[in-house]
Amino acid sequence: MKIQFDQIPEVVTPNMRGGLGEVAGHTFLDGDNRIVRGILRPGSTIGLHTHDTNSEIIYILAGTGKVLCDGVYEPLAAGDCHYCPRGHEHSLINDSDGDLAYFAVIPQHATGTWPTSP
Amino acid sequence: MKIQFDQIPEVVTPNMRGGLGEVAGHTFLDGDNRIVRGILRPGSTIGLHTHDTNSEIIYILAGTGKVLCDGVYEPLAAGDCHYCPRGHEHSLINDSDGDLAYFAVIPQHATGTWPTSP
Repeated sequence: MKIQFDQIPEVVTPNMRGGLGEVAGHTFLDGDNRIVRGILRPGSTIGLHTHDTNSEIIYILAGTGKVLCDGVYEPLAAGDCHYCPRGHEHSLINDSDGDLAYFAVIPQHATGTWPTSP
Repeated sequence: MKIQFDQIPEVVTPNMRGGLGEVAGHTFLDGDNRIVRGILRPGSTIGLHTHDTNSEIIYILAGTGKVLCDGVYEPLAAGDCHYCPRGHEHSLINDSDGDLAYFAVIPQHATGTWPTSP
């Protein structure tokens, strides 16, 4: 199936997870995955939070910013991929003057190991 | 953590899953996720396969192609997002004259439902 982000209403969330400013996102959700095309506005942040039973993979589409992951700052620019594994914490930060556009997948996980041939 | 695709050796796979031509990919793998930045060469395909315990989310970075998912063809272009949910089947097809570049996440899933606040 194709996820038609443009047909999913945009939701603007202020102070996401206790962060600053706002996030505008189109979100698809089912029992396994949360899939988002979002924009973190200039000066905004998604507050520090831990992924207990899921993880998050963020691919930067446009703009610049940084992420604070397990106490380490990582710069982000278009084409970069940030990964917050299960059990780890992160905060997404747009310290630039422009929008930070991203594509994110937040999957729920089994406790089993990866099969040899997925 | 940042996934440094450029520092992950490129692996060229011919006839992936019984498909045509070849795929060139940089793959990160842990127990929860397989994360890939890949190129499906012109005229190449990834053969039809079912995601039994995992799913696949593909974001198209460049080029055009199509996917066959549960018997339905879906055109793909840069900025499109294809989702093959757990238990479903798909085949990725590059029927163009140029490379089809994509970012893919293949997560392993729990059987539980999505929590109210992930």
